[in-house]
Amino acid sequence: MTGPGRMIGVGLGPGDPDLVTVKAARCIGAAKVIAYPALPDAESFARRIAAPFIAADTRELVIEVPITPARGPAQAAYDAGAARIADVLAAGMDVVVLCEGDPFFYGSFMYLHARLAGDYEVEVIPGITSVAAASAALGQPLTARNEVLATLPAPLDSDTLRNRMEAADSFAVMKLGRHIGRIRTLLGELGLSGQARYIERATLPEQRILPLAEAPDPAPYFSMILVTKGADPWLKPPP
Amino acid sequence: MTGPGRMIGVGLGPGDPDLVTVKAARCIGAAKVIAYPALPDAESFARRIAAPFIAADTRELVIEVPITPARGPAQAAYDAGAARIADVLAAGMDVVVLCEGDPFFYGSFMYLHARLAGDYEVEVIPGITSVAAASAALGQPLTARNEVLATLPAPLDSDTLRNRMEAADSFAVMKLGRHIGRIRTLLGELGLSGQARYIERATLPEQRILPLAEAPDPAPYFSMILVTKGADPWLKPPP
Repeated sequence: MTGPGRMIGVGLGPGDPDLVTVKAARCIGAAKVIAYPALPDAESFARRIAAPFIAADTRELVIEVPITPARGPAQAAYDAGAARIADVLAAGMDVVVLCEGDPFFYGSFMYLHARLAGDYEVEVIPGITSVAAASAALGQPLTARNEVLATLPAPLDSDTLRNRMEAADSFAVMKLGRHIGRIRTLLGELGLSGQARYIERATLPEQRILPLAEAPDPAPYFSMILVTKGADPWLKPPP
Repeated sequence: MTGPGRMIGVGLGPGDPDLVTVKAARCIGAAKVIAYPALPDAESFARRIAAPFIAADTRELVIEVPITPARGPAQAAYDAGAARIADVLAAGMDVVVLCEGDPFFYGSFMYLHARLAGDYEVEVIPGITSVAAASAALGQPLTARNEVLATLPAPLDSDTLRNRMEAADSFAVMKLGRHIGRIRTLLGELGLSGQARYIERATLPEQRILPLAEAPDPAPYFSMILVTKGADPWLKPPP
């Protein structure tokens, strides 16, 4: 008799299916049951990335997560999704959870992890983060030698953001949305507008790189501003 | 007549060849010329990761980089390596540069990028960072919702480190080496020892996870301390 199954959180990277790892591709292809979050009546972005690797007879658990200002509905959706996954695990089968980017880097997988890791074995396969993808697409190095890199969610209040921006040599501002105007102002006040670059939907066919001043307001969810204060002089060849 | 070739910096991830992306594996397999750094008389770690994907007839440019306290010898090695790569590019052939982790995240690729990006087309394929790999191997989420994540090189002075640790909700301390004792003391002073986890050689067969107090001093180069101050309460299911 076999024991319970494992939940495997699989990082899919930023969007280009070619940026899925060999391990993740194999794991998805071998999965009997996959699970992934989706907005109601919308295509799941995670499933779109993983699509080339999903076998035809794989069972799919869709976790519909509403976006509401209140906490309750999303939490209830993750409660229900975790319960459905637990049923499969308890029956002795693994469940592969599809995760955009990296499961533990601002990923919704963490809601399932918080609910199930105490009772079931969990494995995580890391993924390419949106920050690494944006840096590569922009051709803009993130961080070298003894530099500090920070990732900053734009919804933080401006005083906190200013402090965190000052405490880093380079930083990525995520989750721009309707905060982009405030971020733009803040970067201007800190004298960093010239070092800031904007990118949206990195690695997808829809990818756009725009001057900061021309970035849309509100910005799409999959957008980012990358700031490198100054290249480390060690990197440069001697003059 | 064809123009000059492109330099392609390929991220290989933290060490497990299965954590190479589909894109990187294909790019390496199709390469006519690859280049990678190596310590004198030592196996190149980047080449070790990429080995399963390298074709038999691929030409290999080894860039021997000495580790010395002085700046000159390493800079001269990158000058010479960049010149050899430039010769191949000028002859119209692409050069695939193998990079541990992600090329733009504390990667030596940036030394080549600084020397060649002004004159030649450069493409970067992002890789799994050691931070994402450590988080996955530890089963310890990095950052959720509106939390700030920072990556901190251990050689920074203690005042700077303390400030940066205070200005983040979670952080990774990299490049521990002979600084690990000082980092341990600092984490104790900040009351963070209980939330700190130590890992070395994540994703390799030699991977070890140790209690912070038992981590070796000096720590190996490929080691990291991950600190998550407190799980975001939103992640948890209602009591």
